[in-house]
Amino acid sequence: MKAVGVVVEYNPFHNGHLFHVHQAKKQFDADIAIAAMSGNFLQRGEPALVSKWARTKMALAAGVDIVFELPYRYATQHAEVFAEGAVSILSAAGADILCFGSESGDLETFKRTIAFLAENDDRFQEKIRLYSAEGNSYPKSIALAFQSLFPSENFVDLSQPNNILGMHYMQAILRQESPMEAQTITRKSSGYHDEYFASATIASATSIRKALFGAAGEMEAIRQYVPESTYSYLIQYKREYGGFHSWENYWPLLKYKLMQCGPDEIKEFYEVEEGLENRLIAAASTANTFQQFMEAIKTKRYTWTRLQRVCLHILTNTRKKQMETSKRTADYLRLLGATEKGRAYLNYRKKDFSLPVISRLSAFSGPDLELDIKAAKIYALAQNGNSQEKLLAEEFAQPPIMRS
Amino acid sequence: MKAVGVVVEYNPFHNGHLFHVHQAKKQFDADIAIAAMSGNFLQRGEPALVSKWARTKMALAAGVDIVFELPYRYATQHAEVFAEGAVSILSAAGADILCFGSESGDLETFKRTIAFLAENDDRFQEKIRLYSAEGNSYPKSIALAFQSLFPSENFVDLSQPNNILGMHYMQAILRQESPMEAQTITRKSSGYHDEYFASATIASATSIRKALFGAAGEMEAIRQYVPESTYSYLIQYKREYGGFHSWENYWPLLKYKLMQCGPDEIKEFYEVEEGLENRLIAAASTANTFQQFMEAIKTKRYTWTRLQRVCLHILTNTRKKQMETSKRTADYLRLLGATEKGRAYLNYRKKDFSLPVISRLSAFSGPDLELDIKAAKIYALAQNGNSQEKLLAEEFAQPPIMRS
Repeated sequence: MKAVGVVVEYNPFHNGHLFHVHQAKKQFDADIAIAAMSGNFLQRGEPALVSKWARTKMALAAGVDIVFELPYRYATQHAEVFAEGAVSILSAAGADILCFGSESGDLETFKRTIAFLAENDDRFQEKIRLYSAEGNSYPKSIALAFQSLFPSENFVDLSQPNNILGMHYMQAILRQESPMEAQTITRKSSGYHDEYFASATIASATSIRKALFGAAGEMEAIRQYVPESTYSYLIQYKREYGGFHSWENYWPLLKYKLMQCGPDEIKEFYEVEEGLENRLIAAASTANTFQQFMEAIKTKRYTWTRLQRVCLHILTNTRKKQMETSKRTADYLRLLGATEKGRAYLNYRKKDFSLPVISRLSAFSGPDLELDIKAAKIYALAQNGNSQEKLLAEEFAQPPIMRS
Repeated sequence: MKAVGVVVEYNPFHNGHLFHVHQAKKQFDADIAIAAMSGNFLQRGEPALVSKWARTKMALAAGVDIVFELPYRYATQHAEVFAEGAVSILSAAGADILCFGSESGDLETFKRTIAFLAENDDRFQEKIRLYSAEGNSYPKSIALAFQSLFPSENFVDLSQPNNILGMHYMQAILRQESPMEAQTITRKSSGYHDEYFASATIASATSIRKALFGAAGEMEAIRQYVPESTYSYLIQYKREYGGFHSWENYWPLLKYKLMQCGPDEIKEFYEVEEGLENRLIAAASTANTFQQFMEAIKTKRYTWTRLQRVCLHILTNTRKKQMETSKRTADYLRLLGATEKGRAYLNYRKKDFSLPVISRLSAFSGPDLELDIKAAKIYALAQNGNSQEKLLAEEFAQPPIMRS
């Protein structure tokens, strides 16, 4: 059985994702698709709209065969660590191919860029330092450094977020000496024309989320951009859990956290750079919403994403000493769900996996899993008591979602 | 000018307090009354119904001339440390007399009891250990030890809470070698008959608080038990700040705190005894209200008060290392308010005070004051954004309340 791996957040699963997973299976003759999916908190430092269980259901209903959780330890990190964690999971699960979406869509260009970067790393790093010193954010500095070194069309455009991720997947495969083969598909984005996925059916996850948090009537407006199964699961989640998750739900908790910790304590949290702690504390006192807070702390130096990750690590009490290790590969494969075909694959191949598959929380323990459990406990606090109880119980008792 | 000192919480100021302060001034020929009043959090480990500023207004309107804040460092402690802190403040402020309410009401009996205790301390402590080892709470063990040693009516009944506090005030005066004279007045309690304060006008602060949190119509029901000024200030507070403060307001924050900290971190908080941390974490996951939580963690070993103090120190992020020192006397006199007569006293006597009087937060700094500021920041989080902003601004900008 041939398996293609994808790295995803599915926040929520939409038609662009549907296109990607079907193309990945079809183009590379894969029998099944394995997803390494972020848990309850995402790379942009945000809570997922709906829980990892609900997102697993959406994925299994739409073509994915196995979903493993990408642990908090990797899911909430900048591109390099995120990619390393994801690659370690797909590789351990025996995926033959890692197929990523990118703006470029051309594998040879990626290979050329990576080879060139490996040869010119000193110059590249020097340029990045230079642009950073001028007060640019890290992603902006990378993009500027890249532009100043490789203006040619023969290289991948590293100012594009999915190209950057793709490059890191490929570099991680090399570093980890994984037998996985990298492949890329051009990302379908809003406006892209395709016989089966016309522009009228593709919208960005960002715009879908925006509509979901709008007036009640706007739910209907997203219907054309997501599979019918996603739509049903979203409706069901809203009814069962009292609403979707957003940073605003957690703002009272983050505010409280920032009010009770002194600067010395805030400094210990992961990604809090020197001097940022006082800025955070001062802004927390006067902000009444997360949006207000973010606007108060935003500077040219830090991207919105970077600051949201800082906030997330403070919210989840995640300290530098827990995250800043050289450890970049996963310890376990937490199974969130599988289709019948996915289960057949697992039964057949599991014995050769280089990491244990966890179906019950009690079957494993370790620092990465502790972070995941803590993240799930905090994630549960978004709504009222009943919703909290349900979400908490799921983290501890929910068996993997089985779809026939 | 002769000054009588009182140690108070005024939660809220009621007719029993009115009786006490007037009698204290009258019986001991005092020109003014100075109150050492707990800030926003109280000895039972609870938030005060209304802020320290509102309670200062009530006190000044009803016979108190000067209000100093009893810092969090002492206000939220068991009787011995509470008493030491309060005595150090009244003593530093030049009070000639400390007049406390007690169930006993007889000073000679207190003196006899204290002398006897000093002589028989070994036996007393041994008995306390014995009863504690049998699984009794500390206050219960003291009461039992006392009963087993001093059955005579010649001694103060140490199973009564205000007798215990009184004894500690007197012991603190001895230990601190304060020139203050101790005096006691029998506490007026509900049911006590008096020409001016008939039983129909005296109710416990507990029953008053209960009525305040009841249906809206019950506000009227407390009117006969409090001075008209208290009644007006309560109405005004509810309107301006959105409601009274109770533990339930802070429950989502405490729950969050307990969910994000591991047992090792919980253990570091003040008053968390070995083993309690796991009990707290487990109960937090399933409780939806503070009441449910308390009922889940309550055992014979810990009093409700003791457990509420544990919760409070966790809520305010107060660690053992910040509280468990041998330091038991205040560093400053934070002036919350004064009447004209009180101000005359301050102008006349301040230069002889053994501690600085603080009227603006920016005029002083130190670990005790930092705890007070943090407590005020957390206290502010009870209601919505506007109320939070108002309360926070007050902590930093409110000058002492001046009453003519």
